[in-house]
Amino acid sequence: MQIIRGGVTQPKGFKAAGLHCGIKRSGKPDLSLITAVKPCVAAGVFTKNSVKAAPLLVSMAHLQNSKAQAVIVNSGNANCFTGNFGLLYARKTTELIAKLLGIKTQDVIVTSTGIIGKPLPYDKIAKAAPRLVKSLSTSGGHMAAKGILTTDLVTKEIAVRTTLGGKRVTIGACAKGSGMVAPNMATMLAFITTDAAITAPMLKKALREANEGSFNRITVDGCMSTNDMVTVMANGLAGNKKISAAGKDYKKFCEALKVVCLDLAKKIVKDAEGATKFIQVDVSGAKTGKDAVKTAFMIANSNLVKTAAYGSNPNWGRVAAAVGAVGLGVTEKDIKIKFSSFSKKDIRVSVDLSVGSQKATVYTSDLSLDYVRINGKYN
Amino acid sequence: MQIIRGGVTQPKGFKAAGLHCGIKRSGKPDLSLITAVKPCVAAGVFTKNSVKAAPLLVSMAHLQNSKAQAVIVNSGNANCFTGNFGLLYARKTTELIAKLLGIKTQDVIVTSTGIIGKPLPYDKIAKAAPRLVKSLSTSGGHMAAKGILTTDLVTKEIAVRTTLGGKRVTIGACAKGSGMVAPNMATMLAFITTDAAITAPMLKKALREANEGSFNRITVDGCMSTNDMVTVMANGLAGNKKISAAGKDYKKFCEALKVVCLDLAKKIVKDAEGATKFIQVDVSGAKTGKDAVKTAFMIANSNLVKTAAYGSNPNWGRVAAAVGAVGLGVTEKDIKIKFSSFSKKDIRVSVDLSVGSQKATVYTSDLSLDYVRINGKYN
Repeated sequence: MQIIRGGVTQPKGFKAAGLHCGIKRSGKPDLSLITAVKPCVAAGVFTKNSVKAAPLLVSMAHLQNSKAQAVIVNSGNANCFTGNFGLLYARKTTELIAKLLGIKTQDVIVTSTGIIGKPLPYDKIAKAAPRLVKSLSTSGGHMAAKGILTTDLVTKEIAVRTTLGGKRVTIGACAKGSGMVAPNMATMLAFITTDAAITAPMLKKALREANEGSFNRITVDGCMSTNDMVTVMANGLAGNKKISAAGKDYKKFCEALKVVCLDLAKKIVKDAEGATKFIQVDVSGAKTGKDAVKTAFMIANSNLVKTAAYGSNPNWGRVAAAVGAVGLGVTEKDIKIKFSSFSKKDIRVSVDLSVGSQKATVYTSDLSLDYVRINGKYN
Repeated sequence: MQIIRGGVTQPKGFKAAGLHCGIKRSGKPDLSLITAVKPCVAAGVFTKNSVKAAPLLVSMAHLQNSKAQAVIVNSGNANCFTGNFGLLYARKTTELIAKLLGIKTQDVIVTSTGIIGKPLPYDKIAKAAPRLVKSLSTSGGHMAAKGILTTDLVTKEIAVRTTLGGKRVTIGACAKGSGMVAPNMATMLAFITTDAAITAPMLKKALREANEGSFNRITVDGCMSTNDMVTVMANGLAGNKKISAAGKDYKKFCEALKVVCLDLAKKIVKDAEGATKFIQVDVSGAKTGKDAVKTAFMIANSNLVKTAAYGSNPNWGRVAAAVGAVGLGVTEKDIKIKFSSFSKKDIRVSVDLSVGSQKATVYTSDLSLDYVRINGKYN
């Protein structure tokens, strides 16, 4: 398996486009489309937030049959807490894109990201849609990666290549993150494409596995979003023997998918709102895997740990206080804390609870003056 | 019941003192002592953090018999995560104070607040202790209130007076808060004195009740401290008929105690690290009281809600996202959000979940640039 250049249009048989339709006042791209030349096997994971944005509700319904052929995304507006009109506009968006592409409405996934609670300017999307479809191309992945960003400073893309039964299989992806990042099953937005041939159940399984160790192990501010989703579309054009069970090919595909997800997850943390540091929290010696994850998140979400990191202050007392707050009953005698690296940009905190053998790793950013500036103003 | 001037030395039969013993580099008071002229019935609530500071372990043991006569507090050092020496120094402090006052070691409560993980400079405390005892006076409450502060900007004191069976009963108190405030049963430090006559079980019950609706309903940064405790000492000098059951007198005493605790809890939030806003979060229409509290804390601890408040931005989308993150399954259709006041200093967020009749109120501060500045530097 190797990492190669490119993003969602790197696998065979995918096109993409991105443009400015007028939602963002900045004039930056705010509408993206990713399409496959043929219907794909598809899977998705969605936020566990019970307040779900309208497009997520529509997309969850559309993915029931594990098929998709296009993903339409707008940024600058979350279309969340927007009532019946929000749902109507999300549905109309899928109908419009389906009509323009000549595919089934059910095969269009729709999502939105941006401010919550403002009406979606559907007319702008509708007006720009024909132009968007016209600009679809096999080199459009980068523009699509741009159109999904909100307060992100950089695009997040990756492509990897592996070989399954002698056939070259490619996975490409793009993501956005920045703020309101505290995953629970799914987080933020990530769109993955692949030319692998794989059955729907195995694709679903692979996505869940890859998601668990990557997007579900990052946090920026402990705030769970209403709009998070990760989707994968597999068009089968690589010509590999269809993956239909958990054998050698599945394992290789899964490993490649994990590399893609972990890479994007780390990129999201590195480009988090106001972030000046990338913090890896390793917890070991826990009784259960769940305890390890809980402890790692308690440390990673501690505002005191995050501000100490911002101030380049290896304050392990705050780490200890966070560990004790988890409620596992571990005491001073149990806990070993190590700052195994503490440089200008990278911090690695290792905590051994000494009560078992389970471990977990979580990634986060620091809490900086710019995080407060960005979120004090954003509206 | 009326609020009067003064603090811990307002009730009959209490003396206090505060001075600088050399722990704080700033030269500000860092050692306080509160004493009663006779042994008191006493009760305490302590942090639920499993990493407990050494003095808390000592004080919890000393309070087993529900008796106390003195509280010794140092600020500038938490004496937490300090191993066997930490425990030794905490014990030695109680022995020393007991000897100087001519009382039992078991009747001395000890506590520390400040940075975690640095050795307690016991020699400084030992050297200053005779001077501290000598300066004890019935007007020393304010100096004691000063000596317990860390990054607090103002002292927090209150005294209230009520009448029980024709006898004037007074309750006085002081507290410190500022950062690492996210209570779980106890929070921060608060010392309450009263001349009421009351049995140990009823005093304990009253403290738990008062604590629940006050110190356990505030949060600054979601970080649970290792050193939090609230204690109350009752010396019985008011001459009221001893409260020994949950009758009319108990009710009046409890109400007065609640006023004291809620007043101090609000003062802690108002003087929170970097705070520019006081935020009251009211949640109603919950299925259970627990759900209401959980939801109110999820909103109050949301960095996005707190930064929006800092920016004077009534961003209810972020409130909705926090509500949905609780995991109660409430959706957009259920939730009603109202900013019933949104001024320069005071914000009131009301959320109706529309699924039941239970409610809860939580108090918090905003997340400001100064919070990050203070905690990026603090060491």
